[in-house]
Amino acid sequence: MANSPSGDSMTERLVRVLETFTVDRTVQTASEIGRRAGLPSSTAHRIVDDLVAAGLLDRDDEHRVSLGMRLWELALRGSRALRLRQAALPHMERIQAQVREHTQLAVLEQDSALFLERLSHPDAGANITRIAGRLPLHASSSGLVLLAHADAELQERVLSGQLSALSPDTVTDAAALRRRLAGIRAAGYVVAPGSVESVSTGVAVPVRDAEGTVIAALSVVLPRDANPDVAIAALLRAARGIRSDLRATSG
Amino acid sequence: MANSPSGDSMTERLVRVLETFTVDRTVQTASEIGRRAGLPSSTAHRIVDDLVAAGLLDRDDEHRVSLGMRLWELALRGSRALRLRQAALPHMERIQAQVREHTQLAVLEQDSALFLERLSHPDAGANITRIAGRLPLHASSSGLVLLAHADAELQERVLSGQLSALSPDTVTDAAALRRRLAGIRAAGYVVAPGSVESVSTGVAVPVRDAEGTVIAALSVVLPRDANPDVAIAALLRAARGIRSDLRATSG
Repeated sequence: MANSPSGDSMTERLVRVLETFTVDRTVQTASEIGRRAGLPSSTAHRIVDDLVAAGLLDRDDEHRVSLGMRLWELALRGSRALRLRQAALPHMERIQAQVREHTQLAVLEQDSALFLERLSHPDAGANITRIAGRLPLHASSSGLVLLAHADAELQERVLSGQLSALSPDTVTDAAALRRRLAGIRAAGYVVAPGSVESVSTGVAVPVRDAEGTVIAALSVVLPRDANPDVAIAALLRAARGIRSDLRATSG
Repeated sequence: MANSPSGDSMTERLVRVLETFTVDRTVQTASEIGRRAGLPSSTAHRIVDDLVAAGLLDRDDEHRVSLGMRLWELALRGSRALRLRQAALPHMERIQAQVREHTQLAVLEQDSALFLERLSHPDAGANITRIAGRLPLHASSSGLVLLAHADAELQERVLSGQLSALSPDTVTDAAALRRRLAGIRAAGYVVAPGSVESVSTGVAVPVRDAEGTVIAALSVVLPRDANPDVAIAALLRAARGIRSDLRATSG
């Protein structure tokens, strides 16, 4: 529909505009958006005008635009992510009260672990994940759990692709990762010391829906040398609770 | 840009497609979307195909579509709503631990109170608000706080418009509401018994940003005859804490 001379669809150009907004860049001018999205300035201004008129972007008195609450509302209101997140939140609060470290919920999205929720304890240590942020599947504890339960095609695509090291301890050897994925399926959890950051250890378990399909990973980030036993038990208990709550509300 | 024969912009048609997804309707066929959005079937199929290709919608094996995680990610990642919500969440958890009732964060959006976050205590009573749901400004405690601090033009528009009763106790008289808004500005909080539902009382306070501008309302929903004093104190303390945290992270 409505293709530009370069062959992009209107939706692709819209996505390129939205992609220019990040955690560290929430306010921009239309010209900045055009430059960052690789769109001609006139096109960028037209799309921004249209998005402002629809309420998907807000424009302030200085003609700078930001993502609108209306976009947030439309993206969340009918989202299955919201249902999962609402089912998980009370259980995540319980984990956090017990373990007193960062607690996170991630889903598989476009070959990454996408973080839907993060609760941070004021006293907790380092943690580079952010809500709506991503981490590679082979490196993060959440990603390893999601990868372990992904279909064979996705596993092969990831394992045969670029396996970058985020820290000196990230496992990047495909054969070693394959053994690790089998271990995760057997054990029902993963402990990944220093895999994302040298100073911390990720611990993650799968979250299953009413049918038993793995739909998310639940994780905590511990100091590197902490004993993970309490965290593993708390995560497994929470994952069972979420599944049970999802079963109760599905239908 | 790319206007249809009926004069809708592509963005307007996109919004109409996204609007067909609700809390109770997270999965639809392209034909259902077209019917609910008032779009010709061929147009609906083309837009849905485009949105699926961009990852904004997901399509399952049975050709049913749902809102995609990619849309969620793009709407949240660079959103100022996310920053406010993250600043508020630890304070909301503290309120909930103390008051043990529903705790909510709302912002003013298109003449409604739009709920960004809700924490629910398992033992808490009735509450019709939902995340990404809305309530009228004149009826909900959050809405009254937001309206009390809105600009004069918006206040007049709301007070001279349709003021529907959600329950027998909703105040719908413009003069009485005007006095109530002045009272909220003077007191710094509102207690609204039975205004949304006969069985409950909403209590809300304004949340201010570093500059002192009211940017949100923080509320709890109590049983109708509960004493609101502890809730008022907890809400005021939380609002001060959120403002202080926003000041620390702004710049």
